[in-house]
Amino acid sequence: MVPHLITALTGPINELEQRVLESMPAIERWFRLEWMEHTPPFYSSVDLRNAGFKLAPVDTNLFPGGFNNLTQEMLPLAVQAAMAAIEKICPEAKNLLLVPEAKNRGSFYLSNVATLMRIFTMAGLNVRLGSLDESIKEPTTITLPDATTLTLEPLLRQRSRLGLKDFDPCTILLNDDLSAGVPDLLTHLHEQYLLPPLHAGWANRRKSQHFKAYEEVSKKFAKLLGMDPWLIYPQSVAVDGLDFNTGAGLDALQSQVDAVLTKTRRKYKEYGIQEKPFVVVKPDAGTHGLGIMTIRDAKDLDALAPRAREKLAGLKSVPALSQVLVQEGVVTHERMHDAVAEPVVYMMDRYVVGGFYRVHAERAEDENLNAPGSSFVPLAFAHSSHLPAPGEKPGASAPNRFYMYGVIGRLAMLAASYELETTDPEAEDYA
Amino acid sequence: MVPHLITALTGPINELEQRVLESMPAIERWFRLEWMEHTPPFYSSVDLRNAGFKLAPVDTNLFPGGFNNLTQEMLPLAVQAAMAAIEKICPEAKNLLLVPEAKNRGSFYLSNVATLMRIFTMAGLNVRLGSLDESIKEPTTITLPDATTLTLEPLLRQRSRLGLKDFDPCTILLNDDLSAGVPDLLTHLHEQYLLPPLHAGWANRRKSQHFKAYEEVSKKFAKLLGMDPWLIYPQSVAVDGLDFNTGAGLDALQSQVDAVLTKTRRKYKEYGIQEKPFVVVKPDAGTHGLGIMTIRDAKDLDALAPRAREKLAGLKSVPALSQVLVQEGVVTHERMHDAVAEPVVYMMDRYVVGGFYRVHAERAEDENLNAPGSSFVPLAFAHSSHLPAPGEKPGASAPNRFYMYGVIGRLAMLAASYELETTDPEAEDYA
Repeated sequence: MVPHLITALTGPINELEQRVLESMPAIERWFRLEWMEHTPPFYSSVDLRNAGFKLAPVDTNLFPGGFNNLTQEMLPLAVQAAMAAIEKICPEAKNLLLVPEAKNRGSFYLSNVATLMRIFTMAGLNVRLGSLDESIKEPTTITLPDATTLTLEPLLRQRSRLGLKDFDPCTILLNDDLSAGVPDLLTHLHEQYLLPPLHAGWANRRKSQHFKAYEEVSKKFAKLLGMDPWLIYPQSVAVDGLDFNTGAGLDALQSQVDAVLTKTRRKYKEYGIQEKPFVVVKPDAGTHGLGIMTIRDAKDLDALAPRAREKLAGLKSVPALSQVLVQEGVVTHERMHDAVAEPVVYMMDRYVVGGFYRVHAERAEDENLNAPGSSFVPLAFAHSSHLPAPGEKPGASAPNRFYMYGVIGRLAMLAASYELETTDPEAEDYA
Repeated sequence: MVPHLITALTGPINELEQRVLESMPAIERWFRLEWMEHTPPFYSSVDLRNAGFKLAPVDTNLFPGGFNNLTQEMLPLAVQAAMAAIEKICPEAKNLLLVPEAKNRGSFYLSNVATLMRIFTMAGLNVRLGSLDESIKEPTTITLPDATTLTLEPLLRQRSRLGLKDFDPCTILLNDDLSAGVPDLLTHLHEQYLLPPLHAGWANRRKSQHFKAYEEVSKKFAKLLGMDPWLIYPQSVAVDGLDFNTGAGLDALQSQVDAVLTKTRRKYKEYGIQEKPFVVVKPDAGTHGLGIMTIRDAKDLDALAPRAREKLAGLKSVPALSQVLVQEGVVTHERMHDAVAEPVVYMMDRYVVGGFYRVHAERAEDENLNAPGSSFVPLAFAHSSHLPAPGEKPGASAPNRFYMYGVIGRLAMLAASYELETTDPEAEDYA
């Protein structure tokens, strides 16, 4: 049952894998020490791209959906991690209020919600669903294709507490990424634990801040392993003041695209990589993979302007459209049954709890795969007997590869932790 | 691959299973609150007996062997639990010194040691083996049947620290139950974490203290669930001052055996159980299942005295021979391919990390199965998609049954925690 994967099994990635496996105790200890200083996000998922010559995160989601894509085998790990997380946050916790995406009634998404409910129930909480959707005025039961039922209830705000009728939770878990802004219902909840914090939502979060933190983390980690951080870091730079309608800021964008392409070309030469570098331009605030452009040459941007305008016009969040992230493109060289595959790693508290390959038959290896039409195949980890085996030939072992994915996923999670510390509006200012 | 189990699927055990499943969030929260007050043993395994009408622990091992009997699927859970345990005890930990049983060179036992090394290496520690065996004077490599190699090294005691040549651990993990007494090498190690503590060893531990604590725990738990604690508690009473050679104390023993049989008979009548009650008499200090006698009638003791003497003569630990535990016998009604089966649950920190059925074809349902000739079959939990499903018909689901086993296993672990607090020689006396 291990999926048949074709990965680029030569070049620097194997050296990286070997270095990572040999250094396992040192890496785990390093994480342990980092988590003494920094609080891990409550839960997260990280999209990775494995180019064969480098492996890097391209998206870190702090309101992860898709828990339903994890296999049943992975759930005990998630339950155990949820127990550890709750114990630290609110050990007396009895009730958990889960707030799903306001408008998403797709059965895939609702399966994710059902899986999260199952995990937290088994971790020892009474879980109920509070909806941000104002059209939910009384308990509304939805039946999923597998006959599971979910009941969405209207949220009740009473002074400084949020709950449901006859349900006063100590912890509120958000699964809506707040792209549409922060609802008043969720502000000033100082008596309850609101997880993740509001500033982790896309109303406030910026990809550029995340990748700045990731650069810092990857340099620290690369130092630990004595390796080049570029092997795990996609060069990233923010460009502000853009207006695709008037053309304002396009020069600045062009020169940054050029700069990233030039640096990437230099790195490719250094490692003897025969690929054509490209960059990805994406809105600096998250938009579920929408509005992402692949650019192979800076002068393509002129031609792209009208298309970009069109692409960016339909986005649900407006605030950060004037700011984009220019990021070194990382091609995915993983294939499954001829379709392009991209690993996604799921974490809860500090633990990797599972993952899968996102597979998209109709997308190219340098395109974003998080789009309609993608499907999901569990990572080898699911089929256990599959813990890393340090003795194996690099590249020869799916579990070893997955251990590496879990390490890079956790580096991105650590970066999110740094990021949230920097952007915390309630942090004391020691400057 | 789910083992074909024949369990007694009628009577009180199904009610208990149903009550346990319905109360899952309350049970998990209750454990969470208990663990705020009490420190879980570092690791443990608990032998259970499922009589169909009652389910009870019969042995709680604080130096568990047999980790090699857990399936590969279970190991990620063990690694995650080990990470959580280490983080609490010594987050800076780099080196772990594992001290295996002094004299045991059996390949099954050594596989257990290899599995423990693997778990702790993956949890981020450099693990080396220090031997209590004085014949180990230099590093000695042993090759296991699966070609794994282990290196036993001589322990080095320097003033107040224990280590190996060029290896100074912050934590020492004992896997020897100290039946033979506490070696001087292990005493007064105040600068390092010695786990489990010395008073958890059989040189000091008494089964009667454990079952006294378990009685307390089971009463608390039964109150939470509104049930009769007898359904999960084997009546247990210690008898001291025995001498099988002179016959001293045999009267007292006889009257206690009688008392336990009478109480058991009363309970059987209350629940309409058609079995013949029996008691088990065992040495109050652990002896790997040796010296355990099954008695169906108090007057059998007279006839038994010579046999008991013989049975108890070969035991490796002498101190507690004059004290025995008289315990209500719990028949095991589980069968696998006609052989008697007994579940064993493994825990690390507060987490259930796996388990298996100990199967013994040549033993009767009221005999001890922890004896040469037993074999091991993973619990259904291993074959996942197997988290508890509260909707299922009681008794119909192996995972639900295993969840209940995990709960009772953890109750016994909690009792061990109470027990070790009571017997801690360094505890402050608030009396």
